[in-house]
Amino acid sequence: VRELARLARSPRSRRQGRAFIEGLRAVGAAIDAARAICLVVTPEAHLSPYARRIPGEHPDLPVVRVTADAFRTMSRRQNPSGMGAVIVERWWGLDSLEPEPDRYWVAVSRSDYPGNLGCVIRSAVANGASGLMLLEGRGDPYHPEALRAAVGAIFATRMVRCSADDLAEWGERYQVTIVGVDPEGSQECHGYDFARPLVLLLGAERTGIADEHRRLCRSLLRIPMSPGVDSLNVCAAASIVTYEAQRRHLSRRR
Amino acid sequence: VRELARLARSPRSRRQGRAFIEGLRAVGAAIDAARAICLVVTPEAHLSPYARRIPGEHPDLPVVRVTADAFRTMSRRQNPSGMGAVIVERWWGLDSLEPEPDRYWVAVSRSDYPGNLGCVIRSAVANGASGLMLLEGRGDPYHPEALRAAVGAIFATRMVRCSADDLAEWGERYQVTIVGVDPEGSQECHGYDFARPLVLLLGAERTGIADEHRRLCRSLLRIPMSPGVDSLNVCAAASIVTYEAQRRHLSRRR
Repeated sequence: VRELARLARSPRSRRQGRAFIEGLRAVGAAIDAARAICLVVTPEAHLSPYARRIPGEHPDLPVVRVTADAFRTMSRRQNPSGMGAVIVERWWGLDSLEPEPDRYWVAVSRSDYPGNLGCVIRSAVANGASGLMLLEGRGDPYHPEALRAAVGAIFATRMVRCSADDLAEWGERYQVTIVGVDPEGSQECHGYDFARPLVLLLGAERTGIADEHRRLCRSLLRIPMSPGVDSLNVCAAASIVTYEAQRRHLSRRR
Repeated sequence: VRELARLARSPRSRRQGRAFIEGLRAVGAAIDAARAICLVVTPEAHLSPYARRIPGEHPDLPVVRVTADAFRTMSRRQNPSGMGAVIVERWWGLDSLEPEPDRYWVAVSRSDYPGNLGCVIRSAVANGASGLMLLEGRGDPYHPEALRAAVGAIFATRMVRCSADDLAEWGERYQVTIVGVDPEGSQECHGYDFARPLVLLLGAERTGIADEHRRLCRSLLRIPMSPGVDSLNVCAAASIVTYEAQRRHLSRRR
């Protein structure tokens, strides 16, 4: 239990690419993706009927039973659901990937808060992205706050760490258009066609895309904004741009 | 200082509709909207050159000078900017409002976290909303976490508290279309025309729009999602739908 709590609470103590997740939806997604290596559950009485059935439905998964108090020491929620899992991190190599004709990638130039990164992952997956590329390994999608904000979406997608040079080379090999999204972008995303193969490169809220990554972009897009607001939350901006990229794609196919 | 810290830290101790905000952008927006009643600043040395100029440019605003340590007791940031303000809450009455032809309203059926509400306000303002209606007074946009997430956007918009009956009556009087956004919506937002006058009614992430508010809606829209994700963060959903409502409006005018 102490080791579980450490795994859950302290990002630095994560070892061997393991992380703790909680909540029914996230645990369900991890199991579906064969990424859960054990379940952590509180006594039957604290679980919903649906959660109670999970261990029985997955007899191969070891189950660690902990008291509700012990679960609280692992949880980051005010009202812990009583169901968690230890999962394995997984990373994909850029070399093993080819752009899929019906999808696109999201690349992250800079990442500020892990919670924001988790939210970006969730919205990107909802809007049809193949996965996320973290340039220079920036951002930790397996940080507890990122996992919490992604609500299981990380298990339905692919995480890649690569250098800017690797991305440039990969983009050239497959003739991928790399498009940046930045408050200083010169073109409104409304009129852009988001033709694939495509990588959308996102920056951080205050600082945008790192200078050394701008050179990767064929265009820099900005989200049009009404007076009174001059920037959006990173997750809001990522949600809008991935939505728009997917909307344009689907409207072309119709 | 103690009273300021209480104002900043504890939402319940807010009195006479006053709240503490911090950060240059938010303070600037509050001043522009004539909503700041005093400035709170740390010693010159801790302020950026731009922040240092603000008190001189607004000689009518009382300035409370506090030590950097005292400012930290008020701040919710890891790296406090050293510039804050006390602001007055402001609320508009539905009776005094008419729909503007070029804009729309966002109504909130349920609100979970104040930080999410602040993010919704920011995105709604960015995407051209006239303001927010909080049904049955749910949600507190002047909560410190909401103010923090809104980054000043609340001063560029209008906050209304009203009952569902009031909204229904107002909608009828001005022939406003009220459209709900809900994971169980029957129509995809891609194809919807968002004709104005319009109110977009949003729910909470898990529970959607309250049952008693669904009857207000002419249609229920859902945001299309790819497999692997079955819901979006409230701020992500609000950002996408307000973006789409504004995009459709602008594309009609072009």
